[in-house]
Amino acid sequence: MADTRNAFYAQSGGVTAVINATACGVIETARAHGDRIGTVYAGRNGIIGALTEDLIDTSQESAAAIALLRTTPAGAFGSCRHKLKSLDANRREYERLIEVFQAHGIGYFFYNGGGDSADTCFKVSQLSASMGYPLQAIHVPKTVDNDLPITDCCPGFGSVAKYVAVSALEASFDVRSMAKTSTKVFVLEVMGRHAGWIAAAGGLIEDQGIPVVVLFPEIAFDEAKFLARVGALVKEHGFCTVIVSEGCHHPDGTFLAEQGTKDAFGHAQLGGAAPVVAGMVKQGLGYKFHWAVADYLQRAARHIASATDVKQAYEVGAAAVKLALEGHNAVMPTIERLGDAPYAYRIGTAPLSEVANREKFMPRDFISADGFGITEQCRRYLRPLIQGEDYPQYRDGMPVFATLRNVAVARKLPAFELR
Amino acid sequence: MADTRNAFYAQSGGVTAVINATACGVIETARAHGDRIGTVYAGRNGIIGALTEDLIDTSQESAAAIALLRTTPAGAFGSCRHKLKSLDANRREYERLIEVFQAHGIGYFFYNGGGDSADTCFKVSQLSASMGYPLQAIHVPKTVDNDLPITDCCPGFGSVAKYVAVSALEASFDVRSMAKTSTKVFVLEVMGRHAGWIAAAGGLIEDQGIPVVVLFPEIAFDEAKFLARVGALVKEHGFCTVIVSEGCHHPDGTFLAEQGTKDAFGHAQLGGAAPVVAGMVKQGLGYKFHWAVADYLQRAARHIASATDVKQAYEVGAAAVKLALEGHNAVMPTIERLGDAPYAYRIGTAPLSEVANREKFMPRDFISADGFGITEQCRRYLRPLIQGEDYPQYRDGMPVFATLRNVAVARKLPAFELR
Repeated sequence: MADTRNAFYAQSGGVTAVINATACGVIETARAHGDRIGTVYAGRNGIIGALTEDLIDTSQESAAAIALLRTTPAGAFGSCRHKLKSLDANRREYERLIEVFQAHGIGYFFYNGGGDSADTCFKVSQLSASMGYPLQAIHVPKTVDNDLPITDCCPGFGSVAKYVAVSALEASFDVRSMAKTSTKVFVLEVMGRHAGWIAAAGGLIEDQGIPVVVLFPEIAFDEAKFLARVGALVKEHGFCTVIVSEGCHHPDGTFLAEQGTKDAFGHAQLGGAAPVVAGMVKQGLGYKFHWAVADYLQRAARHIASATDVKQAYEVGAAAVKLALEGHNAVMPTIERLGDAPYAYRIGTAPLSEVANREKFMPRDFISADGFGITEQCRRYLRPLIQGEDYPQYRDGMPVFATLRNVAVARKLPAFELR
Repeated sequence: MADTRNAFYAQSGGVTAVINATACGVIETARAHGDRIGTVYAGRNGIIGALTEDLIDTSQESAAAIALLRTTPAGAFGSCRHKLKSLDANRREYERLIEVFQAHGIGYFFYNGGGDSADTCFKVSQLSASMGYPLQAIHVPKTVDNDLPITDCCPGFGSVAKYVAVSALEASFDVRSMAKTSTKVFVLEVMGRHAGWIAAAGGLIEDQGIPVVVLFPEIAFDEAKFLARVGALVKEHGFCTVIVSEGCHHPDGTFLAEQGTKDAFGHAQLGGAAPVVAGMVKQGLGYKFHWAVADYLQRAARHIASATDVKQAYEVGAAAVKLALEGHNAVMPTIERLGDAPYAYRIGTAPLSEVANREKFMPRDFISADGFGITEQCRRYLRPLIQGEDYPQYRDGMPVFATLRNVAVARKLPAFELR
């Protein structure tokens, strides 16, 4: 058993409806390779758990509990928004990670997150190499924003896309019912600070005959043009639905709505674009409106997860472990699309040097010429990602989700203060 | 066939995830009694369709299309917010209804709505009697607000309750994942202008170990007490979820948030209590927050409908037709609860004189002593109503909903101008 090393798994950043399916894929696959991988430790609250040596012993969880992660939304071990700065600016934290890994015999680092965590994962792999510590650092993709490069899509996105498309369709049936004497415009605000992938999913309801206007962060907002478009659709159809991305902004770069607070990564905390847009419709066109802000509901909505997304989330977790066992380092499993219809894909690999710190925006040819909708190319891209339903079990009307025991591992090192 | 009369069915007020299941129950049951009921006409956009003689011939719809209504949200024939005033104030509109009914051989009036439409239905039955026109007016209950008297619950409520409970649970798992370094308080705004039934459903997540504060319209808002409660829960659990009813108000009666606009019934149009509450949490306690406003998403959410609710919605529609055939008039089918666990009920009947214009609020003993949660009695009431899942079919990742042909019936009367 000389080549048996332990593994460390952490969830990073905003959680999703399927990040636990990835955790399930990592842990089940690691358990299936007990000859090579000892214990899978998880970071309590993400990378902070590693820095503070607050490790969870996942071997204390039953096979049934781990299996239930596949249908449990959010982060079962806790996540965090703690970005490690550059190696020069915060070498102390990177070295601490290596110390903790060393103290617990950890030779595999699986970091499950978006662009920021890909960057951290890459730096940890570089530092461990320069320190001569044998570590295989594998980044596992996760982000509802769908903005990681190279991979065709990001686990977490398909489910939020399905939630947005289904919810927007249902609400559009509602406003269509009411439009004669009451609400004529329904505005739904969705996530997406910089990239409009989630908003684009709302555009799929046009296939079902719903007049819809999508406001992307990639297209500077033009109020006059927007009101003209809404007015024309209401005149023609009697109603319309507006999908507004939280990242929608004026030509000068200011967001339609900012709460004025910033998160740990220095990103402005957004919210409230929907009431702003609805107010413009009321003032400019006089139409009665309703608006909704889906916020966490959209990314936590495991009850309407995409079966394709759940499957891929599990597969990238399983693939990460296999990549590590094959000797890979500083890579990320990707989803490589082989065909749109019928949809086909395989799990590929990308070097983290090409993943870290690059955001993938909507291609301009995925957005219609007028900037308010999606093109057939975009539809071909999106449709497979929302395919299939993967319902959780229910008991007494409520979904059955896993709440793990999350047993702590005894500390071996002095305390470490986060700064 | 001398005793064959036609029927008129109309949807009223805010639509629900299951009002079309009621329409399905009415139409399928009427079709099964073709010896007594001729054609079922539906009002295009509710009662306005009757006033303007804009009738839909539902016999033009296939059996499959009508069956699909069972899983289709919102109002398939259109609804409206048009309240008929008192007989004295607007006798003209009531008489017009009778004229239209007479012109089209309509002897059965099925009006599917909440308290306002029960009142209208009652007045129409009174007027037809005084005019000597043979009409059986049956009100069919529908309201997400669950505020009709006599009936144990209202079709539409169970599904919105399930949506709110499931969504709040999922979002609570999300905030619990993030709370260590980021969001500690998640605020979800739900519907309910005067009655806190929908908000109460959010209280069910306490059964799943989630710290939750519910803000009811029945309890005057006390900011200091609220912040103390949230602060205590976050200290104990690290996070908490707040469910705020749109009707939550200050002791002086002003709502936490009003948009300043009013609907056709003179009700203030609400929205935006969640950001107000979230701002208080930030200012008073310094916690990072997220908020969501579910708005139409909650009442249109057919994808997560309660099987119990769908069944009851269908049954009250079927019962309405049977009541009419049995010779009843000015009544409403009700749901009579026979037991909580196991849940048992039967369809009963209530005279409209006792239904019209009465709102059923949450009993004080359904709300916890501190005003921020629900009691075991309330749980026993709510639990059966969210039981069971009743999923729509999906095609290519999207739910398959009915869009009817809605063929117009030729007009026989002079035009009528709505005032």
